[in-house]
Amino acid sequence: MKNLRLLLAYDGTDFAGWQAQSGRYRTVQGVLEEAIEKLTGEETRLLCAGRTDAGVHALGQVASFQTRSSIPVDRWHLALREHLPEDVIIREVSEVPRRFHATYSPLSKRYRYLINNSYVEDLFLRRYSWRVRPHLDVEAMQDAAERLIGTYDFRSFESNWPNNNTSVRTIFDIRVYRSSHVRMLQSFSCHEECSGNDDFVAVEVEADGFLYNMVRIITGTLVDVGKGLKTPDDVESIRLGMDRRLAGDTSPAHGLFLVKVYYPEEEEQL
Amino acid sequence: MKNLRLLLAYDGTDFAGWQAQSGRYRTVQGVLEEAIEKLTGEETRLLCAGRTDAGVHALGQVASFQTRSSIPVDRWHLALREHLPEDVIIREVSEVPRRFHATYSPLSKRYRYLINNSYVEDLFLRRYSWRVRPHLDVEAMQDAAERLIGTYDFRSFESNWPNNNTSVRTIFDIRVYRSSHVRMLQSFSCHEECSGNDDFVAVEVEADGFLYNMVRIITGTLVDVGKGLKTPDDVESIRLGMDRRLAGDTSPAHGLFLVKVYYPEEEEQL
Repeated sequence: MKNLRLLLAYDGTDFAGWQAQSGRYRTVQGVLEEAIEKLTGEETRLLCAGRTDAGVHALGQVASFQTRSSIPVDRWHLALREHLPEDVIIREVSEVPRRFHATYSPLSKRYRYLINNSYVEDLFLRRYSWRVRPHLDVEAMQDAAERLIGTYDFRSFESNWPNNNTSVRTIFDIRVYRSSHVRMLQSFSCHEECSGNDDFVAVEVEADGFLYNMVRIITGTLVDVGKGLKTPDDVESIRLGMDRRLAGDTSPAHGLFLVKVYYPEEEEQL
Repeated sequence: MKNLRLLLAYDGTDFAGWQAQSGRYRTVQGVLEEAIEKLTGEETRLLCAGRTDAGVHALGQVASFQTRSSIPVDRWHLALREHLPEDVIIREVSEVPRRFHATYSPLSKRYRYLINNSYVEDLFLRRYSWRVRPHLDVEAMQDAAERLIGTYDFRSFESNWPNNNTSVRTIFDIRVYRSSHVRMLQSFSCHEECSGNDDFVAVEVEADGFLYNMVRIITGTLVDVGKGLKTPDDVESIRLGMDRRLAGDTSPAHGLFLVKVYYPEEEEQL
């Protein structure tokens, strides 16, 4: 029995999210489990790092599953690709120790929210960004974002509170920056500087875990700051107020990307 | 009665081409005529510069129509936009002389064909490019392309020959170049140099008119040259052979963009 780890990218546009559901919904998990079954004849249960919602994309989702298949690890990539639709891409397949658990092992995950802040509509990237027309004050947004770094109760930035668990999370890093959209869509590495046009604004959040809609609510709130409707101090008050109604709107799903998942090295290496 | 000229961009992915058809097909012309009717109550008949096929995109399509509406010309842009779906964008609305005819007045039109020539799939631009994996020899392609510049019978590069008309056309310019895909998707101006990644190859063709599938067959043939399967001399022989079977495959529709239409200045200005 092997434990295999998949590094995945997908276009969330035509998926009802990650998680397999009863009924006819098309999900990333469903499409992948079906591909694995076609390849090996095995029914598997795929675990993932972050169960992305409907419309949310991934550049670096991580999933793992166990298999008895005798297919050599270095053959999996090409073999699996044959059974996948064009909106799911396997980046890497590797064997990991049995203790590796895609969902519970991560140290942190990083999401990127992409805002089209140009005056002109972007016809060809509209599925992958949220268009905000007024020019955003990125420095004020960054200032506000830094009020959220640390270990806090983030229930002001959570849909569906109260839940059964704690709303305390640790945000390690938030960066708000302008860049060209290409780099942001293509690159794995985080916060790359890019010369050239800077018509897009990214909000990147890295945390040990995320509450429901957390990045989208943080982004909606920071956009209010970028428009001058809220101040950085307001954002601190919103966090301290512990009430979802104080924060800004939930930004749309289609601007959100799961960029990278960080695991402890020893859990990834055989 | 005014003659209005629209400069348009659209994402051809979800359209059955430009031309209105009977039945339930969604077409660019149909969507625009419906928007104009909603706005003015008038039934109009839109003329266009190039009737793009299903899946083909436009950065600078031109259309014209006559209207009795009293809406001032400078209000049309915003007013019309309210009635259009997100995959059609109005760039400009202007009043033109009565003699201006979107279809018959052009001096030339320029198309761009976009090839994703990177090793990695581009998840987010797959609707807007044709993926060709082997590294293409762009210099050989440009050399071959130049054998097509001039006034010739292009029936080797035409689907559905024989037709009722001549297959003689004049190609003014063909350029094959590497660039970043962003510039190519966003910019109106042709053949802009872009520093940075050059993972995409564009084939741009400007001619006084185009035969059915002409740019797509030229591109398919030039890609054979880029792969080393044909030589620039072969391309000249193919043209002289006047037989479609000699040329390469028709490349897929979704890599093709109508970039710009050139009109005589005096026909555009009141």
